[in-house]
This record gives sequence, structure tokens and C-alpha cells, in this order.
Amino acid sequence: MPLLGLLPRRAWAALLSQLLRPPCASCTGAVRCQSQVAEAVLTSQLKAHQEKPNFIIKIPKETLTEKYGEDSGLMYDLKDQGGELLSLRYDLTVPFARYLAMSKVKKMKRYHVGKVWRRESPSIVQGRYREFCQCDFDIAGQFDPMIPDAECLKIMCEILSGLQLGDFLIKVNDRRIVDGMFAACGVPESKFRAICSSIDKLDKMAWKDVRHEMVAKKGLAPEVADRIGDYVQCHGGVSLVEQMFQDPRLSQNKQALEGLEDLKLLFEYLNLFGIAEKISFDLSLARGLDYYTGVIYEAVLLQTPTQAGEEPLNVGSVAAGGRYDGLVGMFDPKGHKVPCVGLSIGVERIFYIVEQRMKTKGEKVRTTETQVFVATPQKNFLQERLKLITELWDAGIKAEMLYKNNPKLLTQLHYCESTGIPLVVIIGEQELKEGIIKIRSVASREEVAIKRENLVAEIQKRLSES
Amino acid sequence: MPLLGLLPRRAWAALLSQLLRPPCASCTGAVRCQSQVAEAVLTSQLKAHQEKPNFIIKIPKETLTEKYGEDSGLMYDLKDQGGELLSLRYDLTVPFARYLAMSKVKKMKRYHVGKVWRRESPSIVQGRYREFCQCDFDIAGQFDPMIPDAECLKIMCEILSGLQLGDFLIKVNDRRIVDGMFAACGVPESKFRAICSSIDKLDKMAWKDVRHEMVAKKGLAPEVADRIGDYVQCHGGVSLVEQMFQDPRLSQNKQALEGLEDLKLLFEYLNLFGIAEKISFDLSLARGLDYYTGVIYEAVLLQTPTQAGEEPLNVGSVAAGGRYDGLVGMFDPKGHKVPCVGLSIGVERIFYIVEQRMKTKGEKVRTTETQVFVATPQKNFLQERLKLITELWDAGIKAEMLYKNNPKLLTQLHYCESTGIPLVVIIGEQELKEGIIKIRSVASREEVAIKRENLVAEIQKRLSES
Repeated sequence: MPLLGLLPRRAWAALLSQLLRPPCASCTGAVRCQSQVAEAVLTSQLKAHQEKPNFIIKIPKETLTEKYGEDSGLMYDLKDQGGELLSLRYDLTVPFARYLAMSKVKKMKRYHVGKVWRRESPSIVQGRYREFCQCDFDIAGQFDPMIPDAECLKIMCEILSGLQLGDFLIKVNDRRIVDGMFAACGVPESKFRAICSSIDKLDKMAWKDVRHEMVAKKGLAPEVADRIGDYVQCHGGVSLVEQMFQDPRLSQNKQALEGLEDLKLLFEYLNLFGIAEKISFDLSLARGLDYYTGVIYEAVLLQTPTQAGEEPLNVGSVAAGGRYDGLVGMFDPKGHKVPCVGLSIGVERIFYIVEQRMKTKGEKVRTTETQVFVATPQKNFLQERLKLITELWDAGIKAEMLYKNNPKLLTQLHYCESTGIPLVVIIGEQELKEGIIKIRSVASREEVAIKRENLVAEIQKRLSES
Repeated sequence: MPLLGLLPRRAWAALLSQLLRPPCASCTGAVRCQSQVAEAVLTSQLKAHQEKPNFIIKIPKETLTEKYGEDSGLMYDLKDQGGELLSLRYDLTVPFARYLAMSKVKKMKRYHVGKVWRRESPSIVQGRYREFCQCDFDIAGQFDPMIPDAECLKIMCEILSGLQLGDFLIKVNDRRIVDGMFAACGVPESKFRAICSSIDKLDKMAWKDVRHEMVAKKGLAPEVADRIGDYVQCHGGVSLVEQMFQDPRLSQNKQALEGLEDLKLLFEYLNLFGIAEKISFDLSLARGLDYYTGVIYEAVLLQTPTQAGEEPLNVGSVAAGGRYDGLVGMFDPKGHKVPCVGLSIGVERIFYIVEQRMKTKGEKVRTTETQVFVATPQKNFLQERLKLITELWDAGIKAEMLYKNNPKLLTQLHYCESTGIPLVVIIGEQELKEGIIKIRSVASREEVAIKRENLVAEIQKRLSES
């Protein structure tokens, strides 16, 4: 029986083992650092209606709103006791940037797991909630080009592989290529962000609907939309990057060329990291958030063809990120910039996918890690059960028992079957008298008697074999 | 060099390994359960100004306020876009109780690590913040007496031992004994909660100051205060429980007798769990929160005598909890009760203690887990470094390098010394030509050359030895 109940912990273990690899380069003390981050998170929710922002404890909402483009309407706004406007954090990226600026931290590598809030229409089918958990990893600092960017993609690959979600692909693009493409196609600069938001919907909407939105709602000329349409169908590996260098329109655009140069370098490093085949240069990837300035990426799971009875999964991207070199400077009174690149993983979406897959396969979900259950067929054996469970606990074995003085044996065994606990140790009068313990395998219902003093060793042996 | 940077992870590992032992008894799916808890947490912050509470999505502040007694002023209040009064959660206990009631969950064992907020005067010296992290564990459900309560104390002991905070003591009392003591001493029933709050300050204030507060501020008769004074100086083991059964005043009080009976049974189980010597029945323990109904407990660290240069630590309790049988029923429209017992650990306080101890001992704090640094003395060796680090990462070794094309060797070695990375692998032209790698111990500065193909095995061997 697979242990979905354990997946969160395994998933985190996988996440953490990847994410803890890099150092928090500029921290002199992790404890202090943690406290500061904690404080920063609270402070980041404090935003005042002020003309001149006070960067010590308050960040005006006006400032924050710009960061999320069209999605700003999804922010949860609140007022505090003093009537000042606050909001719940929309993501972990903006608070991180603000923390760097306020603490004058010039380089840092860190992960952060935490809740974020959005005023969306919740949709369990799409794994979308109003409150959900994000796991972020970011590298801040001025470094040589694309080395931290490549590491972010390596980490994304390791995490998604570690989570065993099946085959996946990471789409990569560059915000400068997107903008260059818009310019080359004839999009007026004032419409860049709006068109970018439309393009971002291509993973959920067909091209013709996105085209309609751009033309009918956002006033783009149809021939401009069609030119964009030619590009956004392109995706491939480093050869597509090379091809775009030759593209008559893009190659005329300085921004686009910079983006292409960086992507070429990125693919070189991805190759050395052994993950190039997981990465696809995809011109339809736009990422709606306004703060990205360079490389952007988004991981999607590759669906195996829907089998009979399997419901199609549509959960959008499971991880995404990119480079945001301007965000920290927006929070710094003097505008000092700290280049950053990072990624964000949507935890609930991943859980939802795993749950759906298990449901489809008819796999039962285990909600506990309990390895051993302590049972008795006799009355008045609470003391002996407590002694036994203490022995198991003290040996680091995950054990439980019913909180009843005199439970029925059948109730105890049923409990093990329904919760998927693999082993039962049974103690009764006979066993106590003879100095033995019975070990029962829940799956096979086989029972063997062993000497009491060998209990822990025997359990550990069986657990290591299973 | 001790790894304080790692302590959080180790601490959580210790916490989790203890806390994951028990099952989430009534959950059929951990993922669904998690989502529901997540939703409940947000919902728990929604409180409307309504005469008749709507228990589906909103909880009136009035209802919540009663739960915290005198501390209610510490709640963070907010208003949402609709002008409704909200507040940030004050602890994890009340949201858990509300979740059980709303979801009609009748039994559950769970842990929860999360942020809580209080409008206190922050004090770093006492490890007190406005936003901090709590780690809660609770057992909900109707069970035979004191078995889950004893398990909570066992878990508390295991966690505190696992965290290696030095010697500790868990004070235990029962809310019914406190109330019975008040009644027996002649405290008017209307003053029970107020006097309870005063008694709760005994760990920070001297008896004479607490007495003054009770008499001068809370209008208690001096002779009543003195009677209380006799009791609150009593602490001991199970023999004190026996002694109190004979106490002429307490033994007349039905409530107090019930509490004493339960404590007697509790000590029997604590004995079987092998932790009785860590537990002290302490009549001065009152716990200020209103929602406790039975056994209450609080863990304090036992200070070793202050050594020269060591600053005295005053961080209050590091963990506490108790039984709250009425709280779930307060959130249930029909008043259905679900008895609960649980504990809460203050994470920042524990970090603060560890940090102070290390500072006193002059121990340097490591903020990373990095095991190996990949260095080069040569220019144009980025590709080789990337290949090397990929090999290490793919083998699960925590490795890093500088994000520079051509860093100086001295810069790289200094970085290892300042961050406490124990091993460096060095690759240069000579090494590349000969198919070797140099391994350098940062502490001893010794270097040895090994064959390139033995790199991972050699690193793993060294790491397992250290």
C-alpha cells in the first residue's frame, strides 16, 4: 500500500535535501537570519496609503500592486486597527525582494516554504485554492551570467524527479525575447504587458481564443496577432535558439538578441548538468507576472494518454520561476539593484496530482507512518501494552495502540487493516508467562512467537526487509 | 564547528520523527485532510460582527475572544474588503478545535507547524516576537482517561531530549485542582479566572508581587491570598498527589479530587513510559488560557549555575499544553463535545536558547550544510567545475562553487574557511591531464590526490568518517 500520507514528508525531504545544498551565503547566523525573515514576512503585509513610502516598516499598496500585473486584483486586502491598508502576501518572491532591500543583503541563497493567499475562485479540480502553500528557492546576487539560472533549473529537475510525478518538461523563454518578439511583430510598447498576459494563457486556452482576446479586447491589429501566432508555435532545444538568431525580425532586435545569447549559454550549462533534454525553449511561454526581466521557465507534467476510467488532469504548471533583476531595487530607497533568479513550487497541485493518480490506480491511501501496532487479546493488559510501546518508541520505532483500557482484539486488528499498519505485536497472559511476544503480519495474517528480549531487533529486521 | 544552521532541520527532524509516530486516526486521505486544514486556518481568521454566528465560513470575534482570557488584547485585528472584522490567529489550538467542529471530526491525532501573531511588545531577550512559529501536537477524541495525556507528556520529553537543550522539567497540574484550591481557599467564583491569570505569572514574578496584584488590583482578601500562597509553594512527584488527597481543604472539593485521581493515574502511566522523574506536580502552575479543563503542563529548562561570562537566560517556558474538553463544543452548532489534549512548542525561544549557549561557549555558527566545495586554481575551468559539481550533486553530496567564471583560488579557500565547509575538491590543468582530483581538508589544509573515478566514493568515505 503506497504511503500517500507520507508523501508530504518524503516530498519535503526531497525538496529540502536539494534545497539545503546551497548556502545562505551572506548570513552570519541562521537563527538571526530566520527571525529576520519571519519579521520581514509580517512587515511585508503592512502597506500604508502614503505618498512617500516609509521603507522601515510599511510598504504602500501602490508599490506592491505594480508587481503582479493583471493579477493584482487577486490580492487579499485588509485594514488593521489603525485603519491602514494591509494585504496578505500574494507570493513569496516580492516579500523576499523587500527583505533583501530592507536588510541591505547583497547576496543570498535560500528556500522558503509558506502560505500565500489569492482572491481567486477556488477550484479543487485544478488544484487552485484561496490559501495555498508555496515552496520557493532563490539565488540573489551579482554573479557571472546564467550560472545561478542553470542551477535553478537543475534544482527544479531534481525536485520533480525526486517527487516521482512521471515525465515532465520545463519550458524556457526569456522576457527580453518575448518583448523583442512583440516589438518585431509590431505590438505597440504600451500593450506589451497586456499582450504578455494574454500569451500567458496559452497553456489553458487555444490560440484562436487568445488571438480573439488580443484583437477584440486588447485592440491589437489582426496581422500583428498573426505574426505573434507564428512565433508562439515554436518550441525546441538549443537548435531553435540558433535558428532564432537567424530570424529576420528577431535578429534586428537588441533585447531579443541579448535574451538569445543568454539562452545559448544557459543550454551549455544545462548540458553539463545533464538536464538539457528536459528543457524546451518555448516562445509561447510568457509568464504573466510583471517583475521578470530575463530568463523565465515553467514546468509541466507530460500526461500519459488517458486510460479507460482515468480522468484527465488539468492542473496547469507545477513549478515556475525566472529572473527578476529589478524587484529589489524597487524596494531600496536608493534604488540599489540586487539581481535575483528563483523558482516556486505549488505544493497543493502536486499533492492533487498524486492523489488523483492513486485514485485512478485504485491504490489505497495511507495516512500514517505507523509501523507497529501493540495489541492484546486480554482484559487488564493496558500496563503491559504501555511497557511494550515504550520499548518500541524508545528504539525509534513508530508504534501505536488504542487508547482504551480493554479494546477487543478484532477491533485492534481491523484498525491495522484499515490504516495499513504492516505489523502487530501481541501480548497476552500466555505470552507474558512464557516471556514471548507474537508478531503478526497484517497482510498475510501469519503469526510467529519470538522471545520478548528479541522484540526490537526482530521488528527492526522485518522493517528493514520490507 | 557545530552546525547551528542545521539545528532547525535536525530539530524538525526530531520533532517530526516523534510527532509522525501517531496516526491521523480519522482521516481517509492525508491530502484531502491537509487541504481542509489549510482552508480551516484561513477560515478561522474570518470573524463577523454578527449576533448569530454563521459557522460555515465565519466565526464572530466575540466567540473567539473568550478563549484567551486576559490575553485577548494581544490578538491582531484586521478588516477585510467588506469591512468585516478579522484577526490573525493567536495560536494553533483554537483553529484546530474549530476545524474539528466544522468538519465533524470525532477523533484525530495531528501535528501542525505554523505562524501565530500577538500584539505584544517584542522582546528578543526573552525570545518573544509579534510573529512567531508554533509547533503543536494534539490528540482529539473520547478515550479512556489519561492515556493520551500521558502520551503528550512522553512526546514532550522525547522532543526536548532530542533537541539537546540540557536538563528540563515538566510542571504538571490540573485546572480542576487549581479551581478546587481557589474554592477551598475562599476565592469567590467570579474571581477564579482573574486569580488564575495572576498565579500564571509566578514563573516571572515573585510571590509577594503576585500576592500584591491579587489583593490590591483584583480585590482578593489577604488571608485568602495567603492560603493560596501555602499551596503554590508545593511541588513534587506522585507522593505530593497522595499528600494532597489528605489535605483537609482540597479533599473536601469534588473537582479537586477528580483532578487528583487523574494525576495519580497519569503518574502511573508516566512511570511505565519511563519519564516520571521528569515530571513535577506543581500547584503554582495555572496556565492563563481559559480553555483548559483538566491536566495542564509546562516545560522549563533547568539552568546550570551561571558561569563566568555566561548571561543568564530568561526565556520562560519552552513548551506547554493541557486538556481542553470544552473548546470543540463551543464551535459546534449543537454543542457536541470532542475532548482534546495537546501541546505547543515555541520554536523561536528554543532557537534563541541554543544560539545564546553557543555564543557563550564561543562556538561558531554554521549557516550551511555544504559538505564539499568545488574549486579551481585556473582560468577557464568553469565547464570542468560544473561537470564535477554535477557528479557530486547527482550522488546526493551537498556541494557548491562560486558563480564566477574565473574566481581566485584564495577567494575560494577563504570562502570555505569562513562558511565552515569541511572539504574542497580542486581541479586544474595538471589534474585534468592526469585524470586526478585533489581533495583538501579545510581544517588541516592537507591535500591528497585521488583518481578522478574514485571521487564520489572517496568523498562519501570521508563524510561518513567525520
